[in-house]
Amino acid sequence: MPGRADQPILAGLRVVELSAFVAAPLGGATLAALGADVIRVDPPGGGTDIDRWPLHRGRSLYWAGLNQGKRSVTIDTRTEAGQRRVAGLIAAPGEGGGIVLTNLRVKGWSSYAELSKLRRDLIMVVITGDRDGGTAVDYTVNAALGFPWLTGPVDHDGPVNHVLPAWDGMAGFLAALAILAAERHRRLHGEGQLVELSLSDVGLAVAGHLGLIGEAMLEAQPRGRFGNDVYGTFGRDFGTRDGRRVMLLALTARQWASLGEATGLARDFAALEAQVGADFRKEADRWVHRASLCEMLAEWMAERDLAEVGEAFERHGVLWGPYQTFKQLVAEDPRVSIANPMFAEVEHPGLGSFLTAGSPLRFSAAAQVPPRPAPALGEHTEEVLREFGL
Amino acid sequence: MPGRADQPILAGLRVVELSAFVAAPLGGATLAALGADVIRVDPPGGGTDIDRWPLHRGRSLYWAGLNQGKRSVTIDTRTEAGQRRVAGLIAAPGEGGGIVLTNLRVKGWSSYAELSKLRRDLIMVVITGDRDGGTAVDYTVNAALGFPWLTGPVDHDGPVNHVLPAWDGMAGFLAALAILAAERHRRLHGEGQLVELSLSDVGLAVAGHLGLIGEAMLEAQPRGRFGNDVYGTFGRDFGTRDGRRVMLLALTARQWASLGEATGLARDFAALEAQVGADFRKEADRWVHRASLCEMLAEWMAERDLAEVGEAFERHGVLWGPYQTFKQLVAEDPRVSIANPMFAEVEHPGLGSFLTAGSPLRFSAAAQVPPRPAPALGEHTEEVLREFGL
Repeated sequence: MPGRADQPILAGLRVVELSAFVAAPLGGATLAALGADVIRVDPPGGGTDIDRWPLHRGRSLYWAGLNQGKRSVTIDTRTEAGQRRVAGLIAAPGEGGGIVLTNLRVKGWSSYAELSKLRRDLIMVVITGDRDGGTAVDYTVNAALGFPWLTGPVDHDGPVNHVLPAWDGMAGFLAALAILAAERHRRLHGEGQLVELSLSDVGLAVAGHLGLIGEAMLEAQPRGRFGNDVYGTFGRDFGTRDGRRVMLLALTARQWASLGEATGLARDFAALEAQVGADFRKEADRWVHRASLCEMLAEWMAERDLAEVGEAFERHGVLWGPYQTFKQLVAEDPRVSIANPMFAEVEHPGLGSFLTAGSPLRFSAAAQVPPRPAPALGEHTEEVLREFGL
Repeated sequence: MPGRADQPILAGLRVVELSAFVAAPLGGATLAALGADVIRVDPPGGGTDIDRWPLHRGRSLYWAGLNQGKRSVTIDTRTEAGQRRVAGLIAAPGEGGGIVLTNLRVKGWSSYAELSKLRRDLIMVVITGDRDGGTAVDYTVNAALGFPWLTGPVDHDGPVNHVLPAWDGMAGFLAALAILAAERHRRLHGEGQLVELSLSDVGLAVAGHLGLIGEAMLEAQPRGRFGNDVYGTFGRDFGTRDGRRVMLLALTARQWASLGEATGLARDFAALEAQVGADFRKEADRWVHRASLCEMLAEWMAERDLAEVGEAFERHGVLWGPYQTFKQLVAEDPRVSIANPMFAEVEHPGLGSFLTAGSPLRFSAAAQVPPRPAPALGEHTEEVLREFGL
């Protein structure tokens, strides 16, 4: 079968997306970046996320980022004719079609029961807030999970939210995975299905995998808040002479040895080991004595500029990295430049040109899809309606 | 084809996992929870993550969580005979086999070049820290990305790490997705491939999708740190009379109206609108005037207990949720109980019994896999070696 390496990995897959905000749009963008034909359907004027911040020149960078590489169709689904059109698009024939991804409320015409009447082997992936369909978003799920009491400065009084909508991100990737799993099943057995997931179940499952649910159930006194210290091992932030911060870790015995060599503090560490009867090759001992260890390292770091610190750490294979603001990231880090083949300068309609990422996944036997902008809202309405005879 | 609904969605898939810590183990656990046969291979005595905290009775809850539902095989790969055995296991015949997932350093016998000699259609997914193979972990990637300068209390001076290893989680889910995409390709075209991804590329791609890279490139003054305020809309934490905290949001005009009704503050909001010339149906106006709005709401909340607040909010469909510690989550939240079919009481060898989650994905045409514990280290060595004639 010639030419397959010229095709992106998900060539032939077609997904209709009814969505807003992060989870479903990110799932769709993930599939689009791998070559699927992802058609986002919005009401005329756009969904509730069309003007979501951050903005530039009054336009949403958020919408532009979360809808990269898709086609955009606007249809008014308050009318029956509009509903019929969207349903027809979802159920349109074709081996790789008949797939719908949504994080909107489904009911009536947009339910699996109704849509699967139009195409028997329909695959529908529905993301909800709570498992029972109740409203919940990343921020309320995270509040319930307990992470805000573990995150933030030790002496801080209240909960600290992380700004990254991590549960949305994970739910989006899992929804994309669910589509591929269901499509495999359809290929093997000829049948479609409904797949459901909720943000809260995703959060709970991940918290469980990380041991946090077991810890809370089994331990009388589960962990508290430890600021930037990485729980149970050696890892923390430090300041350099020139006012920068670095994240420094030693998760393994080898990394710990490297750190002693790079800083010349190996003998001081050994002296402390002898004094307190510890073995710093063990994670638990590094954790227990972290205050003393960090004092030595903080002093060493405060006497050196970032460049000097970085050079010593790189030479000895220390596990570390500088903190950067987003401005520093885009200005100074070669990973955000065209030296990183994941990025390209892309012109985004109405926003201008900026470095834009494609998929972080690289398939050796498939073509990479170049990074693409989001469509203008409704840009492909006519084209798509014509293509599917709607 | 009868009986397919009795099978889990990934029945027939076999993945060999060479891994440590979070990303690859989570990817493997995700596939195992959907019915794939995931065989984790470790050195005798375990990998570097075998004793990772949190612990209970001296055993790792982290390892137990991240390796749920897998088979465990121990083989010493410092010997050539051991390397041959692992390579033989990876390349063992079978339509759903020939798949390897790793976040360890691959070289020599464990490289794609060598392993694919043993099985031409091998699929290998390799997770690295940096794209160039350089060492990086969730914490150093996050430091580079800029999130620690956006996270945490407004008046805090340094970077604030989030405790959740979000990039590991997302990379793990993407790695699992990559396996399904490559397996689809193999089914269609008969060929395997190498798939590579790095934690740093995953972080950069997600930051791009959220608009943060575009913002930093295009805006002279990108956003700063706003504590628990959700940027560009209405969302923040509040304290109740009985000392609890709640996360409260209004992302849409409807949610904003609900909040006015639930609190009886609609008229006060309208008065403020008239006074400052704002329209609080618009997200941007809610953001700009959030200090005044939050003052009114903080006062209302401080006069009521959590139960009363919750009742009013639920009755009016307000978007909100209480903050919980992990202890409160497992003690009080019905979502962590057998009332949630994702959970079951599972006996974990050496740890005891606790509520354990299965996959958050529910496939209507496939059997759910009941939550399973992690294996004991090496539990399946003999069984697996015999099964594959090694």
